[in-house]
Amino acid sequence: MAGVVELTCELIRRVSVTPVDEGCQALLAQRLAHAGFTIEHLRYGDVDNLWATHGSGGPVLVFLGHTDVVPSGPFEDWTSNPFVPVVRDGHLYGRGAADMKGSVAAMTLALEAFVREWPAHAGTVALLLTSDEEGVAHDGVKRVVETFRTRGQRIDWCVVGEPSSLATLGDQIRIGRRGSLSGHLTVNGVQGHVAYPHKVKNPIHLAAPALAELAATRWDDGNDAFPPTSFQISNIRAGTGANNVVPGALHASFNFRFSTECTAQGLRERTEAIFARHGLDYDVVWELSGEPFLTRDGALRRATLTAIESVCGVAVDANTGGGTSDGRFVAPLGAEVVELGPVNATIHKVDECVNVDDLERLPLLYREIAERLLGANG
Amino acid sequence: MAGVVELTCELIRRVSVTPVDEGCQALLAQRLAHAGFTIEHLRYGDVDNLWATHGSGGPVLVFLGHTDVVPSGPFEDWTSNPFVPVVRDGHLYGRGAADMKGSVAAMTLALEAFVREWPAHAGTVALLLTSDEEGVAHDGVKRVVETFRTRGQRIDWCVVGEPSSLATLGDQIRIGRRGSLSGHLTVNGVQGHVAYPHKVKNPIHLAAPALAELAATRWDDGNDAFPPTSFQISNIRAGTGANNVVPGALHASFNFRFSTECTAQGLRERTEAIFARHGLDYDVVWELSGEPFLTRDGALRRATLTAIESVCGVAVDANTGGGTSDGRFVAPLGAEVVELGPVNATIHKVDECVNVDDLERLPLLYREIAERLLGANG
Ligand SMILES: [Zn+2]
Ligand SMILES: [Zn+2]
Repeated sequence: MAGVVELTCELIRRVSVTPVDEGCQALLAQRLAHAGFTIEHLRYGDVDNLWATHGSGGPVLVFLGHTDVVPSGPFEDWTSNPFVPVVRDGHLYGRGAADMKGSVAAMTLALEAFVREWPAHAGTVALLLTSDEEGVAHDGVKRVVETFRTRGQRIDWCVVGEPSSLATLGDQIRIGRRGSLSGHLTVNGVQGHVAYPHKVKNPIHLAAPALAELAATRWDDGNDAFPPTSFQISNIRAGTGANNVVPGALHASFNFRFSTECTAQGLRERTEAIFARHGLDYDVVWELSGEPFLTRDGALRRATLTAIESVCGVAVDANTGGGTSDGRFVAPLGAEVVELGPVNATIHKVDECVNVDDLERLPLLYREIAERLLGANG
Repeated sequence: MAGVVELTCELIRRVSVTPVDEGCQALLAQRLAHAGFTIEHLRYGDVDNLWATHGSGGPVLVFLGHTDVVPSGPFEDWTSNPFVPVVRDGHLYGRGAADMKGSVAAMTLALEAFVREWPAHAGTVALLLTSDEEGVAHDGVKRVVETFRTRGQRIDWCVVGEPSSLATLGDQIRIGRRGSLSGHLTVNGVQGHVAYPHKVKNPIHLAAPALAELAATRWDDGNDAFPPTSFQISNIRAGTGANNVVPGALHASFNFRFSTECTAQGLRERTEAIFARHGLDYDVVWELSGEPFLTRDGALRRATLTAIESVCGVAVDANTGGGTSDGRFVAPLGAEVVELGPVNATIHKVDECVNVDDLERLPLLYREIAERLLGANG
């Protein structure tokens, strides 16, 4: 579709390192307003969020994206300036080219084309953008969804533009995500000198068998949509550095990526039962990033697969792998969620790029999904 | 004995925070030279060591001490300036009063009196002082003993002035020390994102069962002179702080305090066998502070007990507890070693002090040990 490379370049030139939007959303809002969309800027803290809608009532189809990018690292590590987009050998290079300014540009062009062709489409079609997906993500889509809850704003279908593809556009989509639950553990002991072992309670000794048991536990076997729940201790520390002092406390952080066979509540209870069984004097602070969600076979998955078949002609692997995305905030509204975007091989790396052929087909893909869901009834 | 409080005060006024001697040894050397001792200053690195001898040949009785002190911490935490000695309520206050400037002053006065009374005593009587007992202790008595080995300098008996007493002077002596062996462990894994558990090897998970087994191992049952060997992990760390990254390596330090039922070599082998059995990819750097030693019943122990009986009239507990001392370096020369000094309740703390009555009896105690070992034949 004409213009998607140019629009992606305009976005890459804006140095929108998370959580800064740097005018990306204003640029897109202006275009969508011109196309007849209703524009709402939702700014929370230092985060910009854009909510652009066309039509009214249900069903509601939302395209979801982010304008922020991860830092580039030192410019000299890149072949060319990460914020000066350039096409080399059929690829457009620049920070955010694949994650996900290309998708955001493509969604905008797809929506313009869709409402031009289907001015009286069924329900509502919308674009939701945030400038805080790559950062702490507290004031981004999470806050927007809280607002939607209080307003009673429904979302039936959500297409997230995260770069889901492996080798070529459309060869992989995400139809759900594992849940993510973190714990921050403190095990209390009694500090003292190593020469007086009867006066100390070594929290490293106390914690080790409990941590070993957690690491050896099989939490579930997964299911047809999810791999088994995994547990990883990411950080551990205890001790002052002195080798003759037994520390008074041990600190550890861990994370579950969990399937729909577990719940956050269940994992918390099983973990704390292990701490208790080992007789630990402990505190744990829990942090739930998101419950797992799964988009079962339905209108959105069928529309997406048909669009990929028609535009890309590749076999699609629909799975729940990979890291978290803002889809985790939208799914609990009862929305079906899929993630579909360009090849993710270079994201968050130096010389991030997107294949130009893929980028030019991406608006067609998004437009066809919109047409299959809302156009036929328009 | 007249003068011990005054001499201790002169030493306390010298701010000899480890490894600085601040003229303490020169002061004592001057006195001992005047009393007829041969003086040798052995300076290694930034550490002062003093070797003062009287007489010749064997047997050789050495009084061992240190002129350095641990830091005072903030002056305002003390009731009075830690480097301005003052007597309150029958106690002399100041950093080093108990550990061990009082002992060093007492040894000096005892030696002066002993050679005045027994100018032609048997064998050799000596004072060995270092300014690095409280610090890394690499250039202190350890280096002096290396020099002694190359010279063929024998030591038959060594009285260490460390504060050994519990409630009153002479109620406890040390007749040996546990060995001390440290290990610095690195467990190697494969770093990665927590979302991709099949791509990582979590070194915390790998290490936990091995550390749990080490902590649960009974290394020996001790014996009549030693408590059971103890193992303590003093430090552990892994992770970048980020909760979504599995670290590539885990670092831990641990320490054995071991009885004569174990050897450093045996502990190293048993520990590494546990690492190997758990399939760890690991490195360990071993650091032997000292093998255990025990002074069995003999001339030195008998002279010490008789002197305590005569000067202090208290029951003596002779044991091998407590932390390391420079005695660990002297014992391997084949010397019998005992530690005898004032009450240790306040050492390394604010308001460190020594009981003035105890301090005044300490030179008598040391002199009587010298007389019983070398005087009768003089
Ligand atoms: Zn992204
Ligand atoms: Zn000391």
